[in-house]
Amino acid sequence: MRQSQLFTKTQKNAPKDEVSLNAQLLIRAGFINKEMAGVYAYLPLGLRVIEKIKEIIREEMNAICSQEIIMSSLQPKEVWQSTGRWDDKVVDVWFKSKLKNETEVGFGWSHEEPITEMMKRFLVSYKDFPVYVYQFQTKLRNELRAKSGIMRGREFVMKDLYSYDTDEKRHLKFYESVKNSYMNVFKRVGLGDITYVTFAAGGAFTKYSHEFQTVTEAGEDFIYINKEKNIAVNEEVLEDSVLKELGVSKNELTKVKSAEVGNIFNFGTSKCDDMNFFTTNEEGKKISIYLGSYGIGVTRLMGVIADHFADEKGLVWPETVAPFQIHLISLSKNEEAQNIYDDLVKNDVEALYDDREISAGEKFADSDLIGIPYRIVISKKSLENGGVEIKKRNEKESKIIKIEDIARELK
Amino acid sequence: MRQSQLFTKTQKNAPKDEVSLNAQLLIRAGFINKEMAGVYAYLPLGLRVIEKIKEIIREEMNAICSQEIIMSSLQPKEVWQSTGRWDDKVVDVWFKSKLKNETEVGFGWSHEEPITEMMKRFLVSYKDFPVYVYQFQTKLRNELRAKSGIMRGREFVMKDLYSYDTDEKRHLKFYESVKNSYMNVFKRVGLGDITYVTFAAGGAFTKYSHEFQTVTEAGEDFIYINKEKNIAVNEEVLEDSVLKELGVSKNELTKVKSAEVGNIFNFGTSKCDDMNFFTTNEEGKKISIYLGSYGIGVTRLMGVIADHFADEKGLVWPETVAPFQIHLISLSKNEEAQNIYDDLVKNDVEALYDDREISAGEKFADSDLIGIPYRIVISKKSLENGGVEIKKRNEKESKIIKIEDIARELK
Repeated sequence: MRQSQLFTKTQKNAPKDEVSLNAQLLIRAGFINKEMAGVYAYLPLGLRVIEKIKEIIREEMNAICSQEIIMSSLQPKEVWQSTGRWDDKVVDVWFKSKLKNETEVGFGWSHEEPITEMMKRFLVSYKDFPVYVYQFQTKLRNELRAKSGIMRGREFVMKDLYSYDTDEKRHLKFYESVKNSYMNVFKRVGLGDITYVTFAAGGAFTKYSHEFQTVTEAGEDFIYINKEKNIAVNEEVLEDSVLKELGVSKNELTKVKSAEVGNIFNFGTSKCDDMNFFTTNEEGKKISIYLGSYGIGVTRLMGVIADHFADEKGLVWPETVAPFQIHLISLSKNEEAQNIYDDLVKNDVEALYDDREISAGEKFADSDLIGIPYRIVISKKSLENGGVEIKKRNEKESKIIKIEDIARELK
Repeated sequence: MRQSQLFTKTQKNAPKDEVSLNAQLLIRAGFINKEMAGVYAYLPLGLRVIEKIKEIIREEMNAICSQEIIMSSLQPKEVWQSTGRWDDKVVDVWFKSKLKNETEVGFGWSHEEPITEMMKRFLVSYKDFPVYVYQFQTKLRNELRAKSGIMRGREFVMKDLYSYDTDEKRHLKFYESVKNSYMNVFKRVGLGDITYVTFAAGGAFTKYSHEFQTVTEAGEDFIYINKEKNIAVNEEVLEDSVLKELGVSKNELTKVKSAEVGNIFNFGTSKCDDMNFFTTNEEGKKISIYLGSYGIGVTRLMGVIADHFADEKGLVWPETVAPFQIHLISLSKNEEAQNIYDDLVKNDVEALYDDREISAGEKFADSDLIGIPYRIVISKKSLENGGVEIKKRNEKESKIIKIEDIARELK
């Protein structure tokens, strides 16, 4: 894309009420726009990052045979009353409104109940199981405070996955496979080495749930980790009996700040039982259904990535989620820059081409702020030196390579 | 995809309160699920259709240099108060709720005001224009009645495009180019010959706006058309002066029922003026900004397509938006079916493979209801006859072709 065509512009300052680093940088670089506290629009650069993250998650979800759907934001009261979660005292993040006929409606802060309600229509015999479905949904949550930028919004994108099974062993096996899938996602977006499967409180049916916590100062949680043993424990289950089970002692653990980028929860049969959702076995006998619920905060993940890799000059995107792979910067009007750009486009390389008539200093500052992985500068000087100057965003040294070697260099 | 893995199932009957043909068929075939009146979830087959439609629209939008973004559903009151449209007496489809601190918030039924507000941040000089942005957004509208299935929902997907310009001529030229883009979309989804650019009421600045009306009994509108002259007029502007201008007389027009699948509106400079959004010209003088607003109802379009092409047996999808291109039906366990399926997958042909152990009659009935463009049946009989039986969903006759000729036949 030509940068002269991109409608967003970088800005020196973020809004004064924006206290989180991720939103400050993303606003300044033109990735997002603040609509109100905890509510952001995603502009062309930001939307490209979101779509890259979604595609990585989609691939991992499809790989474990789950099927993509999209539920609704508007939700009827009744389906939530069946589990007691319509009550504002039980769930304190509801946004609610009314139809013209005074019927109350809720806006989806979660989708366990509606999806489970829908499944009654399709899953009538043990033969119909297991079923795994997921969606990328915009969740609306009436948070009291929203000061963490896109890491905790009143409106945000979540990938939620639900598993339904009649067989407990197979159910638990799937639960384990989601753990692997999720770690694959976090590895692929560049956070693998600082993200921990973390033991957290379970429910009536299970001793533990599991959170995926990324170690970052920007987080709102605290966890206790042992890097060598790859063990992490949430404060709420930091008990001697748990530690003994995990084979780690309290003094081997370090307290760190972290952000919960994902979580998986085994409801056992409790949720489906509560919602009066049963099925039949081989003998036609009524049996219970196991439910697992698995979430990844997509926009939060983008915020964590933005925050974690940033340096004093701006954003630094991992190649897998970067809005473009190459920032091509032309410092003088020249045919070569245009030819290189045309060539990159032809070869399906995602390039942002800074063809604007502004100073070199401004172009470099913008490029550092936006944080595309590779910067290619073409100038009279670089051409005299035999080609173009190429530099990785997270490295200091640039080098001169021949124009015809660009493709090879990027591989 | 293997049909045995698809969690949705076809159903003989739609819910009793579902009176529209599009929703009846789409529910029965497992494309959508009714969450409440006017609110539907999109299941794997339905989501595939929506994504196909969106991709066609996206290609056409990108071709006219517009940039994709995504705004928020939650909207602050102030931005709508500036144009008087926060008032429920002015806009009667608002869903509203409150933050914990009692601040009122609205849920996006439209996005003209928020996008325009955001543009103040980026468009400060005449050099920054023109700018064209679009989004695929889930709109929430508190409709009094919602009885047209996915053709008029309380929650639906819309593509909305906005153009900002300082130059009136260029602004009007873009308006005309959107007309072409929109007609390209409707042609590509198969509705070109029954969709009319329809003259409708304009605003303070323009004599007319333009609607894209598809002739269908399922529509909620009435328009007056002359097929030969390719002229269509909305009831609200059916006046002698208008007809004279268009060169058509009243008795040459036929009244037909139709569905509004798109509309384009020229606000002139009124909206930006109202919102105190101005820019500067070459001499640094304050000047007004022209706004155009252009919408396509994505889910409505899916409903119109479903309704229009359906026959007594079920849905009939045009190839461009079909969830799969081929419905491969195996009537006996055989290696050939599996091999053909593997081959189709390898060649990136989207195929739904009915590998279920049910009767041939049930498979055929399901296939007709789901409406995939090509049906390929492989059975002992077809193999004895030298290959597989291939039939288009909208044709009666099938023919036998050799297995190795399938790829060629589909081209």
